[in-house]
Amino acid sequence: MSTISNRTFEEIQLGDNCIRHHTVCEQDLILFATVSGDRNPVHLDPEFAATTPFKGQIAHGMFIGALISAALAMDLPGQSTIYLSQNLSFRKPVMIGDELTVELKVSAKHESKPVVTLECSVTNQHDKVVASGEATVMAPTEKMTVNAPELPQVTLG
Amino acid sequence: MSTISNRTFEEIQLGDNCIRHHTVCEQDLILFATVSGDRNPVHLDPEFAATTPFKGQIAHGMFIGALISAALAMDLPGQSTIYLSQNLSFRKPVMIGDELTVELKVSAKHESKPVVTLECSVTNQHDKVVASGEATVMAPTEKMTVNAPELPQVTLG
Repeated sequence: MSTISNRTFEEIQLGDNCIRHHTVCEQDLILFATVSGDRNPVHLDPEFAATTPFKGQIAHGMFIGALISAALAMDLPGQSTIYLSQNLSFRKPVMIGDELTVELKVSAKHESKPVVTLECSVTNQHDKVVASGEATVMAPTEKMTVNAPELPQVTLG
Repeated sequence: MSTISNRTFEEIQLGDNCIRHHTVCEQDLILFATVSGDRNPVHLDPEFAATTPFKGQIAHGMFIGALISAALAMDLPGQSTIYLSQNLSFRKPVMIGDELTVELKVSAKHESKPVVTLECSVTNQHDKVVASGEATVMAPTEKMTVNAPELPQVTLG
């Protein structure tokens, strides 16, 4: 069973970073459509998507937001992080097969409260930034490692 | 088969709004954990979540972002909207069973480009704002109605 640890507010230093990788697959788009309710055919229908300026199925913009949120919750600060706010710019379309790198970097620590700001950037396999923004979180003050629950198998169709 | 229409940049007026409702269920949390990779037990493990300050399983913050993004893509402006940016503040925890209302309201139209800003707010069944923010999108310039693809059945377990 895998575990989730954290870096506490005290441990976190300016410039601390984390990196996660994810290759986008069609199941991501179907699941994100299911959970969000966004059934736009540009995400789901290859024939329709081929007729758009994108020339193929693109990932939902907020799917990239979801990947950023997972990096905050799983890696930096990790367990017991409380999400306060996020801003995000969607800079380039993300296609099925794109190999994304999500990077978070600590850019500010609040003077009196355990609040941390992180720069967020997501790049593709061509080193192009597809999304960028800034997250503000309440960092944990207590060191903790917990078991990550196993997820049930998801079957489509 | 359901359809997705749109309001074009020309049609959109300041103050135009749309409202969507969603009741949060445990499957939302499992699917969002699967698609994002955020397997924090506060979202997934009722026993663990009961020991946290939230006293129960909470929805992922960015799941609320996903609901907002769906309202932009499906309702206002709707089909062929291009998502440019989003900021979001997560104000209150969202629990399983919460009845959410997502409201978008047009707050600005760009003078020369088909760019629209929308205030976004998500309230729960107690009329408390759980998340709020602002979206900027490129609105469609062409009137369009398309079929919304049917999604495959998702089975967990």
